[in-house]
Amino acid sequence: MENEKIFEKLEPIRVPEIDEILGVPFKVLDDGFIRVIDYLGSDQSIVQAARVSYGRGTKKVSQDRGLIRYLLRHRHTTPFEMCEIKLHIRIPMDAWRQWIRHRTANVNEYSTRYSLAIDSTQTTEPDQWRMQSSDNKQGSAGFFDTEIGKEMSADEKFLHDKAREIYSKRVEAGVAREQARKDLPLATYTEAYWKIDLHNLLHFLELRMEKNAQLEIREYANVIGNEIVKRWVPIAWEAFEEYILTSKEFSGFELKLLSLLANGKKEEVVEAAKEYGWIKYKDDKITFNMERWEFEGKLNELNIPIPWQ
Amino acid sequence: MENEKIFEKLEPIRVPEIDEILGVPFKVLDDGFIRVIDYLGSDQSIVQAARVSYGRGTKKVSQDRGLIRYLLRHRHTTPFEMCEIKLHIRIPMDAWRQWIRHRTANVNEYSTRYSLAIDSTQTTEPDQWRMQSSDNKQGSAGFFDTEIGKEMSADEKFLHDKAREIYSKRVEAGVAREQARKDLPLATYTEAYWKIDLHNLLHFLELRMEKNAQLEIREYANVIGNEIVKRWVPIAWEAFEEYILTSKEFSGFELKLLSLLANGKKEEVVEAAKEYGWIKYKDDKITFNMERWEFEGKLNELNIPIPWQ
Amino acid sequence: MENEKIFEKLEPIRVPEIDEILGVPFKVLDDGFIRVIDYLGSDQSIVQAARVSYGRGTKKVSQDRGLIRYLLRHRHTTPFEMCEIKLHIRIPMDAWRQWIRHRTANVNEYSTRYSLAIDSTQTTEPDQWRMQSSDNKQGSAGFFDTEIGKEMSADEKFLHDKAREIYSKRVEAGVAREQARKDLPLATYTEAYWKIDLHNLLHFLELRMEKNAQLEIREYANVIGNEIVKRWVPIAWEAFEEYILTSKEFSGFELKLLSLLANGKKEEVVEAAKEYGWIKYKDDKITFNMERWEFEGKLNELNIPIPWQ
Amino acid sequence: MENEKIFEKLEPIRVPEIDEILGVPFKVLDDGFIRVIDYLGSDQSIVQAARVSYGRGTKKVSQDRGLIRYLLRHRHTTPFEMCEIKLHIRIPMDAWRQWIRHRTANVNEYSTRYSLAIDSTQTTEPDQWRMQSSDNKQGSAGFFDTEIGKEMSADEKFLHDKAREIYSKRVEAGVAREQARKDLPLATYTEAYWKIDLHNLLHFLELRMEKNAQLEIREYANVIGNEIVKRWVPIAWEAFEEYILTSKEFSGFELKLLSLLANGKKEEVVEAAKEYGWIKYKDDKITFNMERWEFEGKLNELNIPIPWQ
Repeated sequence: MENEKIFEKLEPIRVPEIDEILGVPFKVLDDGFIRVIDYLGSDQSIVQAARVSYGRGTKKVSQDRGLIRYLLRHRHTTPFEMCEIKLHIRIPMDAWRQWIRHRTANVNEYSTRYSLAIDSTQTTEPDQWRMQSSDNKQGSAGFFDTEIGKEMSADEKFLHDKAREIYSKRVEAGVAREQARKDLPLATYTEAYWKIDLHNLLHFLELRMEKNAQLEIREYANVIGNEIVKRWVPIAWEAFEEYILTSKEFSGFELKLLSLLANGKKEEVVEAAKEYGWIKYKDDKITFNMERWEFEGKLNELNIPIPWQ
Repeated sequence: MENEKIFEKLEPIRVPEIDEILGVPFKVLDDGFIRVIDYLGSDQSIVQAARVSYGRGTKKVSQDRGLIRYLLRHRHTTPFEMCEIKLHIRIPMDAWRQWIRHRTANVNEYSTRYSLAIDSTQTTEPDQWRMQSSDNKQGSAGFFDTEIGKEMSADEKFLHDKAREIYSKRVEAGVAREQARKDLPLATYTEAYWKIDLHNLLHFLELRMEKNAQLEIREYANVIGNEIVKRWVPIAWEAFEEYILTSKEFSGFELKLLSLLANGKKEEVVEAAKEYGWIKYKDDKITFNMERWEFEGKLNELNIPIPWQ
Repeated sequence: MENEKIFEKLEPIRVPEIDEILGVPFKVLDDGFIRVIDYLGSDQSIVQAARVSYGRGTKKVSQDRGLIRYLLRHRHTTPFEMCEIKLHIRIPMDAWRQWIRHRTANVNEYSTRYSLAIDSTQTTEPDQWRMQSSDNKQGSAGFFDTEIGKEMSADEKFLHDKAREIYSKRVEAGVAREQARKDLPLATYTEAYWKIDLHNLLHFLELRMEKNAQLEIREYANVIGNEIVKRWVPIAWEAFEEYILTSKEFSGFELKLLSLLANGKKEEVVEAAKEYGWIKYKDDKITFNMERWEFEGKLNELNIPIPWQ
Repeated sequence: MENEKIFEKLEPIRVPEIDEILGVPFKVLDDGFIRVIDYLGSDQSIVQAARVSYGRGTKKVSQDRGLIRYLLRHRHTTPFEMCEIKLHIRIPMDAWRQWIRHRTANVNEYSTRYSLAIDSTQTTEPDQWRMQSSDNKQGSAGFFDTEIGKEMSADEKFLHDKAREIYSKRVEAGVAREQARKDLPLATYTEAYWKIDLHNLLHFLELRMEKNAQLEIREYANVIGNEIVKRWVPIAWEAFEEYILTSKEFSGFELKLLSLLANGKKEEVVEAAKEYGWIKYKDDKITFNMERWEFEGKLNELNIPIPWQ
């Protein structure tokens, strides 16, 4: 940054690909949506902010891409905070309960103290009832047979109708809205304006596009990622996919094993795993060890045979 | 802060009045509670932190009280951030939805993805159904007749039973817990650990002990304030009551009117209010003006006659 | 918020008064500046966000003004968080040390590890040396005589030159920039991009436009307030001046005294003040009491005679 | 979490290994220190908080260790936020400038507006002058010859003495402290109370114990990590070393290459790297590519030969 700089008037930074969809809802779930209300910045703003730190002016696009990838790869997060986006979201309260746990954002939610609750509740098609996962206590796996699902959907409809009926009855009798709402189902839709910077949005997407995130919030996250962020900051998005979404981390001990494996020292690998407590036997059978099991999963994805099998 | 200071080993700062109630639940609502799990600091820590800034050692208690009052009165908030408290809370999800909007806190909530939903839902006694306030769109005012309330409570019970029945049916059939819970009533209890610093806790209490806060969350706030904070940091609490809970703010224009009133210039007050747009007539009747109406409320509380009446 | 809403494509919200000055530096101190780089939202966005909560569409401008004033007066802060602004600032490190204590903002600062330190240091004109305030331990009051100031400015220049000379010598010898900078004077200029939402910006201005804030940072705050925020969100700014900058708060006890005073009960006021501990005598002289003294200041500004004098 | 739980009175959670060193300064640099003032929680509190989420009571220690490692490995960060620590730090302002960029902490700093600046400035021994790194623009590498260093240290002493002399002259003449300090060297010591939760502290340590962090702040970070956190939460610390300090991340593309390498497909690796843009030639020489170069570094550490060499 030279000291005798002359500053010219700036034009606002606009991204045509986002301006085209401003205000247009992307449908999510049966009656939810996401709309972009406004935004500040672009890929170019990330570069601009980083170059304040480095004290240099703007360069050509190929260097910009390299810089953005470098920043994201090394978790230099502050330049990504220089972009901001404001979304309008319609979402079941149950998913919103998870959403709102991300604290670094600005929120204005529709008030059911002030206004009547939105007359819409997320419903489940007969083929969309999910079974409890057996190996992930907080996940689901596979769907119920449609015949069984039909009854479940009928029960759901009965409950929604009853809950709404009792809500309306209370409101008509003059019960305070803040109390009348108390027994609405968690699946009732709410709406909110949600404003967040790009760094924190990417962190949100990292957690909520993940395969273990609950299906409902994952669908919102996918729309934000693939339909919105990708249009808004395409270079940052590409880097995010490469360095966050598809990356994997290896612990210090896992790196040690990888190194031994790469050098063909299979026996030493097994020895090290034993010493580390990963390999124990009970009745001649190897016992379950979660850390080892997670490492085996990574080896599988790399098509590397598991040395102790 | 002298440069040749010798530091002695410190003892942890404990407050006997809080140690006595550590872990003991204060009951709130029909099945909620608040328990103190742990805390860090005391009134003394506020003083200690302020004196780092001032570079001086500790003084006598009377000066400590003056200093804490000074800090709170002038909104020097950072020394209050040096105290921290961790609570265990059991609360209906509906009230928790409001609670969680306070972002500057640490939270671990009971997971209904991982575990079965807590089998308890906030119920309403027949004499506890509240009427919608007519002058506050988000408030309540007065209670329904018990006879009417009985029917409302019966409807509530019916809905709670049905919702729980359907939830249990889903879980037994093997529906994923994350989906089975989707139609639980907002009144279902949840639990959480909630950790916050004293400055942010006082701000929470300022908003939630306020008469316009919803009754349910207000009951939790009252317990935190009167049963916990008062025991924990009695000097800060006294200052909070004096300078926040019972204080009032006057705008620049209101101060101008107050000054004129105090000097007996009643006509000039009316003239100023007209010029400012507070006094307008329609069909010879003064029209409603919210800013004027709020000022009239303050004059009433000061027993000062309203000059334009 | 109706359920069958049709959303139309939005245009970005732009404020012509700000677009005109985008990128143009406002000079501050001898070699500092502030430039607006970009922004998101306007007065209209505050209203828009509030109406999500209330579930209503936009109204006419006069109602918008009333709503914004209402929100600010009652500290409904979240709609103000829906506006965001990004500034480029050049400022002495000493003032920046205070600035950066405001944590709710995004920052990219010029790096003197990576680049050479900016070759500019804030200098003081001979008539700008300020005397230590006697009644405010952290303030200044009045200026030194220019003759005395001349010597001070000469010393300042000597020190700046020496510090820069030694810095350059180190850099030329090949000392790491991160170490070479270690003895630069605090008055050395730095630069940063600083992005913040309107609510937090107003809080920053409340603290830094205050008469007790240090002159240097106050000059930056004044430029942000009067040159930038006023253009950007004129209605919010007007409300801020009325309800924050020129308002005053009275404690519970002060309100009690005001009420007695307004009703002519001067003796009771004095009695209450004695009981409260505000009035004590030593050797027949009333002793200093800071809380009483602050209240006296408020009475003075209201032109109300002090009852115990 | 059973519904009919009976809560017993709790004892405060104390960690004897920390209580022993409470208030005792660890020396850092030539005149800096770090002292633990107070803390809240322990390894056990992390487990306790996680089990609120899971709705289960406490288990045996071996399971606690597994749980803490699981939480840290999968970045389930909220239970770590349930521990809090308060430190007293004495540190040169230059390092403090970096420190304070970590925003999620509570801070009370010694005020040089209110009090006289601490009369201590970080000095450099003749053998401690560091050379600018040639391959890392913001780093240092190697030390200067002591003979050269002697002159540098003499210049440093001259500057420190002059700066302090002029500071004292100003203060004695009655210049306001807030202005008198303006030309103090960045190396002047300051002091602060700093309070932070364990999650954010570990993030601080991840960034500041890293080999590219500036030496001065790294020394503070090392003391906090190795002397304090290790004593306070030994299980979390061990997991942090394993999963953060010594771990490595591989991008999606790097994983693809690793997999090919592990399966002996060296030619396909080179082909993929060419296609990806990592391998380009100029005048028959392979050109520098930073992403490829970083991957080569990781291969080196794994003792895997670089396939394109």
